[in-house]
Amino acid sequence: MKIEAVDFFYFAMPEVTTDADGSQDALIVRVAAGGLCGWGECEAAPLPSIAAFICPMSHGACRPVASSVIGQKLEGPDDIARIGALVAHDSMDLLQAPHTFSGVEMALWDLLGRRRNEPVWKLLGYKRSEPKIPYASLLFGDTPQETLGRARQARADGFGAAKLGWGPIGAGSSQDDADQFVAAREGLGADARLMVDVGQIFNEDVEAAAARLPALDAAGVTWFEEPFHGSAYEAYAALSGRSARVRIAGGEAAHNVAMARHLMDFGKVGYIQIDSGRIGGIGPSKVVADLAAERGVAYVNHTFTTHLALSASLQAFAGMADDRICEYPAAPRAVAAAVAANPLPRDDNGEIRAPDQPGLGVDVDLPALKPYLVDTEIRVGGEVLYRTPKIE
Amino acid sequence: MKIEAVDFFYFAMPEVTTDADGSQDALIVRVAAGGLCGWGECEAAPLPSIAAFICPMSHGACRPVASSVIGQKLEGPDDIARIGALVAHDSMDLLQAPHTFSGVEMALWDLLGRRRNEPVWKLLGYKRSEPKIPYASLLFGDTPQETLGRARQARADGFGAAKLGWGPIGAGSSQDDADQFVAAREGLGADARLMVDVGQIFNEDVEAAAARLPALDAAGVTWFEEPFHGSAYEAYAALSGRSARVRIAGGEAAHNVAMARHLMDFGKVGYIQIDSGRIGGIGPSKVVADLAAERGVAYVNHTFTTHLALSASLQAFAGMADDRICEYPAAPRAVAAAVAANPLPRDDNGEIRAPDQPGLGVDVDLPALKPYLVDTEIRVGGEVLYRTPKIE
Repeated sequence: MKIEAVDFFYFAMPEVTTDADGSQDALIVRVAAGGLCGWGECEAAPLPSIAAFICPMSHGACRPVASSVIGQKLEGPDDIARIGALVAHDSMDLLQAPHTFSGVEMALWDLLGRRRNEPVWKLLGYKRSEPKIPYASLLFGDTPQETLGRARQARADGFGAAKLGWGPIGAGSSQDDADQFVAAREGLGADARLMVDVGQIFNEDVEAAAARLPALDAAGVTWFEEPFHGSAYEAYAALSGRSARVRIAGGEAAHNVAMARHLMDFGKVGYIQIDSGRIGGIGPSKVVADLAAERGVAYVNHTFTTHLALSASLQAFAGMADDRICEYPAAPRAVAAAVAANPLPRDDNGEIRAPDQPGLGVDVDLPALKPYLVDTEIRVGGEVLYRTPKIE
Repeated sequence: MKIEAVDFFYFAMPEVTTDADGSQDALIVRVAAGGLCGWGECEAAPLPSIAAFICPMSHGACRPVASSVIGQKLEGPDDIARIGALVAHDSMDLLQAPHTFSGVEMALWDLLGRRRNEPVWKLLGYKRSEPKIPYASLLFGDTPQETLGRARQARADGFGAAKLGWGPIGAGSSQDDADQFVAAREGLGADARLMVDVGQIFNEDVEAAAARLPALDAAGVTWFEEPFHGSAYEAYAALSGRSARVRIAGGEAAHNVAMARHLMDFGKVGYIQIDSGRIGGIGPSKVVADLAAERGVAYVNHTFTTHLALSASLQAFAGMADDRICEYPAAPRAVAAAVAANPLPRDDNGEIRAPDQPGLGVDVDLPALKPYLVDTEIRVGGEVLYRTPKIE
């Protein structure tokens, strides 16, 4: 097959808020080759990501992503890795390129799986797709009372694990945060897994983050996620060294394999969290999953958007039976919920698995997404370089 | 002052080639506040960088750069740092943001300097602007003969230092590369400083890079630049450990302070090369210069574009007398040459200094740039979010 066309679809809610909720818009990628289509999703700002695909070349090491993709041969997994290396080299100085390529790369795997009639996890070398415990990914409420309600709801919805994130954590005192952790634990019940995500709020301030450890420990929290910015390896390592039970988690900001490796080797995290929609797709995610296994670090997907992204993010560790939990977008906005025509079901145990269907096993429901389509046009030098594709 | 307006001007040569020559286009930023204008330049792909400034918000941690800049107070250097921190947090998930903000940040320093009637290096706390030895930054020829000619020309143009980069290095055998190094040395003369830049060609392959060390050593090369990709700290450290005399250099890909710090601490480079047009501007560059001084690492600017970028990149280490050499765009394309109305002169010793004039001391010649203006328009949801500003 030869890659014939790559189309980007930008969808969004009519109103986007400042909530730390990544499901308010979606950048969906369709790749066509050999009479088939594959689908992927960038976990990224749509407009700059589209621009990185179609922009004019600045020089040999700052080419648009399209120049490394369109017309390329696609016969096997090696071709996907080869195209990824081409993007990394020829778009070296185009910072947005890994976010743009991530969605394209997923679509290439989906296409290849559909062509071979095999799920992506088989193409990655796994024998079976292991069941995972989905944790509901939720935002802290403005008050402990609100958090309590959200945690109770997750439990009522059948989740035996939940992660609470962002909200007011770090903005007030350690005691304020402790009250939130207590509320989350109370709402979830004593036997559920509880994780806490603070969205880089402490930047590089180890003392401020460490001040939260006793309350996290008392609430029986499994991991303490992203206390610092994504490259603050020294701070991650310092905090890891000071935490007896609660393990430190991070990695969603990694936009290449080296960043994830460094967070493990220099940052000493206990959980490495990879977003396949940012790190360059499924191939690099699988490389990180293997590196994590060698190091005894637990691999977890980062997914806060659609079930297309969820399937893509599960593939990299689908066959790793020891990595039991996975992030699950429990309360996505309508636009994110509308992407997958066939979302991943929870089984009788409340668990999910990367689908057995060919490719990513997710069909994109374009007509259902029409109301969310964001009409976009980019003109450079009198030429239309991008225009929103028509949905019939 | 209050930041009233930020305008992006995208300029390019009529034809852009695949040469590793970053002077083929330019993204110039003009910031207006308090009746004054400041100028800056992003060393970045223009279209995605503009898109990152004006794109619709995706969520609270993926906001356009504009939302952290327009309307902000600008009274002193602390305001610039505060705005930078706001961008880092609110555009955390927008990968292109640091490249976009770099040009804006320079313009804020320029504006503040013009307002206070002081050069930027004084605002950074330096007492004087030290003379630097400019090295001519050139590309290797396709053949040693061509390289010989370019090196001779640089010497004839009065340069006592030159860096040869990219071209065929790494594509053939070690002996092929050795012939190139010999030609560069011969052309430049025995007493000149010679540096070699290989543009990440060895990716993470330490053995391949190490195979070039004897020839680099024999040619009396000062530094061996970017043998690996920007995050390959382990490979940098391994090569540093194997090189007796030639020091390893890197850092131009750093898009935040932590990346530069890691390249020094984990990568053990001897020269840290910072592009103020990528790392987030002049403030972060100055932080790296201070970290480098503490570590005994030499600081060098990375500048391959205009004299506006050159002045901006010199500010961070303008007062550091021990860091003697600086990169100097010796053969820029016409568009890059046209940006500065008053380029930085070489003095009787062939040396240059960050200007004594207020701000960056460089005036942008908009009318001279008119032939290179790339007409651009971005429409989203029926609204024009960006249109090339008029040049009178």
